[in-house]
Amino acid sequence: MRATVMHAAGDVRIEDVPDPTLIEPTDAILRVTRACICGSDLWPYASMQPSETGQSMGHEAIGIVEDIGPDVRRLKRGDLVVMPFAISDGTCEFCHEGLNTECVHVAFFGNNGMNGAQAEALRIPRADGTLYALPVGEDHALLPSLLTLADVLGTGHHAAVTAKIAPGKSAAVVGDGAVGLCGVIAAKRLGAEQIIILGRHPDRIALAREFGATDVVPERGEEAVERVLELTGGFGAESVLECVGLGSSTQTAISIARPGGAVGRVGVPQDEAMPASQAAFYKNLTIGGGPAPVRAYIDELLPDILERRIEPGRVFDRTVNLDGVPDGYRAMTERESIKVMVRP
Amino acid sequence: MRATVMHAAGDVRIEDVPDPTLIEPTDAILRVTRACICGSDLWPYASMQPSETGQSMGHEAIGIVEDIGPDVRRLKRGDLVVMPFAISDGTCEFCHEGLNTECVHVAFFGNNGMNGAQAEALRIPRADGTLYALPVGEDHALLPSLLTLADVLGTGHHAAVTAKIAPGKSAAVVGDGAVGLCGVIAAKRLGAEQIIILGRHPDRIALAREFGATDVVPERGEEAVERVLELTGGFGAESVLECVGLGSSTQTAISIARPGGAVGRVGVPQDEAMPASQAAFYKNLTIGGGPAPVRAYIDELLPDILERRIEPGRVFDRTVNLDGVPDGYRAMTERESIKVMVRP
Repeated sequence: MRATVMHAAGDVRIEDVPDPTLIEPTDAILRVTRACICGSDLWPYASMQPSETGQSMGHEAIGIVEDIGPDVRRLKRGDLVVMPFAISDGTCEFCHEGLNTECVHVAFFGNNGMNGAQAEALRIPRADGTLYALPVGEDHALLPSLLTLADVLGTGHHAAVTAKIAPGKSAAVVGDGAVGLCGVIAAKRLGAEQIIILGRHPDRIALAREFGATDVVPERGEEAVERVLELTGGFGAESVLECVGLGSSTQTAISIARPGGAVGRVGVPQDEAMPASQAAFYKNLTIGGGPAPVRAYIDELLPDILERRIEPGRVFDRTVNLDGVPDGYRAMTERESIKVMVRP
Repeated sequence: MRATVMHAAGDVRIEDVPDPTLIEPTDAILRVTRACICGSDLWPYASMQPSETGQSMGHEAIGIVEDIGPDVRRLKRGDLVVMPFAISDGTCEFCHEGLNTECVHVAFFGNNGMNGAQAEALRIPRADGTLYALPVGEDHALLPSLLTLADVLGTGHHAAVTAKIAPGKSAAVVGDGAVGLCGVIAAKRLGAEQIIILGRHPDRIALAREFGATDVVPERGEEAVERVLELTGGFGAESVLECVGLGSSTQTAISIARPGGAVGRVGVPQDEAMPASQAAFYKNLTIGGGPAPVRAYIDELLPDILERRIEPGRVFDRTVNLDGVPDGYRAMTERESIKVMVRP
């Protein structure tokens, strides 16, 4: 079969690889019907050291269960499922707490040698715990929105939850990528009254406004901080969603948070140290977040998609087949595209 | 009158200074009956650059209101009061939220030129909001415990609250100073089932056990982390109280926290960057805390002292008069003493 393999920064190839096979009795084989390129895929695309074997890419998918091992109980061949970005067993204490990304068996697709979903098919370990069966057919019109349940919608929701958004609160979203835009959806969905997005790309900003952003701050750095303070009565936003992961964006997130407020961070931190520790301390901020337990959030978010109360699938502004994946990486890196959907 | 002035690292003097006077109509003059030396006073004692004017020291006191300005409404001359370490107006939106240390008029006694309480008397700005009148006489047997309401008990409580301690949870306390010991009291008071203290000084550990610590970890660094993981079923403590403020102690706090858990930090951070940002992210930790709104906590904590359910005053193991203050700094620095009480 064909799959996407990254060999070094900027070097993404579509290659013929062996078909996936069942290895463990809890495995399933997923035939991918939709996948996508994630903002977090752009980190290795920018910096990966050359690798002889390469890394199979992709961690978001919708697909059809093509085969299952003898110990798979909750899925059957032919099921249409969401594949969240992390493997979880569904049975450990963390999974029971709804923290599937802290599962004792957690691993991330398309990472550290794990197979990826920008491919025709892939093996899914611990399929019962990992996959989520959808109540729709494989040609459903809402497939793009359902695909966001694999990562970006649940991740934006996690930012909003860990930023403690509640009805009537003020929120600020740092980052206008697909996760930031889904953060806007989540903030509105959880009742935020004021939703400020920091961003400057016209297409993204337009979508943010349609998703519920009430204010746009195109400035950066100190100027952005001043502008958010102006918009929030001088004190900052009660809830800040950090959807980038850079030191500078984290610094901004802490600087625009209201004393006593919360920062929910879902951008994968690129630095080992967090900036502005003293500022966060003296403002009594709460800083939470991490890899979003998107598997656990599907129960809550799925009805809003099916009943069309939210349309997160609008973050996809380009669709490619596998041959178009390398150019999709380029387009997202150059911000020609917000998020690229892949139909293998 | 006589007051404590720090001129440089290691150089603390008792000096004659002008008597405090009312300046603003909302001021009070406090005659100090009890003050103390704080672990946070040891940071400038270790590192202060030489200063010509010096810094008046001390931010915890119990005293008698000796005079009040014409706009002071809630206090009268002769009241016995607790002086929390921070000035708060009692009327702004942050004070109304119980976040007095984020008051729009916040300032810290004995800091940045503000007068300190290791003195015979001091001026108290915004006295109505800042001071808390006690329902006991000035020779009450519980005065040492009541004095901890000015800082260390409320600060330990803040660590416990921001570490999200709840009945049945596991807690770990990093730091065996007076704040850490009060953190043990607070953790037990809020229902933690397991309370691990990281420390190695026999007198402090003995007191921690009497306050409710169930386990003691004398190791440091990686060995301490391993030991806490062993004690908590391999995953770490659900609530971690960071009561030191060093990079190394913060690193330890993050390392011993259970995935999905919370770190409440009240040790004044000595570094601008926080370590282990990626570890905290991948564990989905919540990191909260800051300068404790001890003024707001007095309502909750005072009855437990008066009804003798808690005895935080036991952290004082030495009492000095003003002349003994310089040696008190030395004794706390050399860990001869946990916390020094001052009777001016």
